[in-house]
Amino acid sequence: MGLLVVGSIALDSVITPFGETADALGGAAVFFAMAGAVLHPVQVVGVVGNDFPEAHLQKLAARGVDLAGVEGQPGESFRWKARYSYDLNSRETLETRLGVFADFQPRIPEKFRDAKFVFLGNIDPELQLNVLDQVKQPKLVACDTMNYWIQGKKDLLLELLRHIDILMVNDSEARELSGDWNVYRAAHWILGRGPKMVVIKQGEHGALLVDPTTMFKVPAYPLQEVFDPTGAGDAFAGGFMGYLASTGDVSDASLRRAMVYGAALGSFAVEAFGVEGLADVTLADVRARVRAFKDLVHFDMDEANRP
Amino acid sequence: MGLLVVGSIALDSVITPFGETADALGGAAVFFAMAGAVLHPVQVVGVVGNDFPEAHLQKLAARGVDLAGVEGQPGESFRWKARYSYDLNSRETLETRLGVFADFQPRIPEKFRDAKFVFLGNIDPELQLNVLDQVKQPKLVACDTMNYWIQGKKDLLLELLRHIDILMVNDSEARELSGDWNVYRAAHWILGRGPKMVVIKQGEHGALLVDPTTMFKVPAYPLQEVFDPTGAGDAFAGGFMGYLASTGDVSDASLRRAMVYGAALGSFAVEAFGVEGLADVTLADVRARVRAFKDLVHFDMDEANRP
Repeated sequence: MGLLVVGSIALDSVITPFGETADALGGAAVFFAMAGAVLHPVQVVGVVGNDFPEAHLQKLAARGVDLAGVEGQPGESFRWKARYSYDLNSRETLETRLGVFADFQPRIPEKFRDAKFVFLGNIDPELQLNVLDQVKQPKLVACDTMNYWIQGKKDLLLELLRHIDILMVNDSEARELSGDWNVYRAAHWILGRGPKMVVIKQGEHGALLVDPTTMFKVPAYPLQEVFDPTGAGDAFAGGFMGYLASTGDVSDASLRRAMVYGAALGSFAVEAFGVEGLADVTLADVRARVRAFKDLVHFDMDEANRP
Repeated sequence: MGLLVVGSIALDSVITPFGETADALGGAAVFFAMAGAVLHPVQVVGVVGNDFPEAHLQKLAARGVDLAGVEGQPGESFRWKARYSYDLNSRETLETRLGVFADFQPRIPEKFRDAKFVFLGNIDPELQLNVLDQVKQPKLVACDTMNYWIQGKKDLLLELLRHIDILMVNDSEARELSGDWNVYRAAHWILGRGPKMVVIKQGEHGALLVDPTTMFKVPAYPLQEVFDPTGAGDAFAGGFMGYLASTGDVSDASLRRAMVYGAALGSFAVEAFGVEGLADVTLADVRARVRAFKDLVHFDMDEANRP
């Protein structure tokens, strides 16, 4: 079953206490694809400028990512530059140059339109709706957004919520969208606007899956070394959707496993700079980390021996 | 098996966005006892001034808490006043008046000295060591501390670590004690100083149990209403130790369950002001919440149907 992602492809320059990168392969669709492709083939729709290094695209191709939907346009590629705080818990954007991404008009190649699993990166909700018009009969559509659209295009975003299955956002975005500080109430506010489920990404504190009657929490993996948080949320989304597409199973039990696969891929993403943490990860690595997650959170009820 | 706690008994005045209390029943030993006693009888050693309301002590007695170790001294009771931020994530201490607590010399009544489970609240490490000299042959000793002692009496604290089984501290205390920002490395630093296990309390993000070879994470319970975070960590400790004392089982599997019972009691503590959230909790309530925790974090591996 096809797995399609539409979103940014960027050249990232990132400064952390442990080093820095310049014009490295980045962008939401890229982190999603590098992570998701460990589990299932990923189809990417995005745009790059004519300055985009061919070697960067080769990294994606080497992962088996289908780049038929990546358009080259005359002009500069999307560039993003940021600096992280000493504890990696906050970052300051130093520069955003949209380049050809400013006029991005997603065109879904014919062969991608049958995709059963669709992830809409945090682009303009108008473009997200436009992508939904182009895909035929997806089984599950998940969607990210960002504060910029919550502030600037809230009506279109609310319209979009009526057409998707899962909204997947950061805790700060859930709070801003709902106007409610409590993330659990915020999630239910969002559920009231259409989506069947909400996934709230909580950075170093993991992620939460909320539907109208249940909640599932996966912590972040306990890492003694974190080098670069960039793209962790998109790698999480890639692992989550990659798991669902690979099994074709969207039952509650499968969605919980998808959360853990997402958290596993997110953990590999932050262990190195940029996409490097994802480039060499094998399916066996991911399975081992999923087992480690099980060990991290599992407890027996032991009803026979209780207070 | 006896469960003993030594620590502060206080009159708390707390201001939150939802209301305020004045001279309410509080203190680490009190929150510990109110929570632990839901699961197992608790013995308290502490000190109060002659201004301490009898009705407050009656609340503890009504929970079946043994107050034979609570000394009355001429003078003022320990008073603490604090104000929480609008999101309850930070608080400012407005006033601390130690009163009779300044000269607290824990005397363990003869009938408490056989206690098999001992919790040392965050008092002077010299007094904590002194308590250990008075108890006969405890099966498990857990211990809290605070930044004040980490800064002022680090040598004695390190001496104490050689004599206890579990250090149970906040993430900020683990960081300050170890000098390492990463909580997982901080936990291993502490393990290297003597304790068999470290429990790191992470507030709204739950708690972590670390031993030399494994980790266990329990999230905080997802609450749509939090009124007063005061005492949540001590209620966690009470639930944790109460579970262990009630079963007498200190196996790895039991310690994991104890973490969940701790988190359950912590969640009841924050749902109302002061100890009110704990006063009416039944064993059935706690068991139901433990089952809810299981549902919150449980996932099947489903090895047959994986990517």
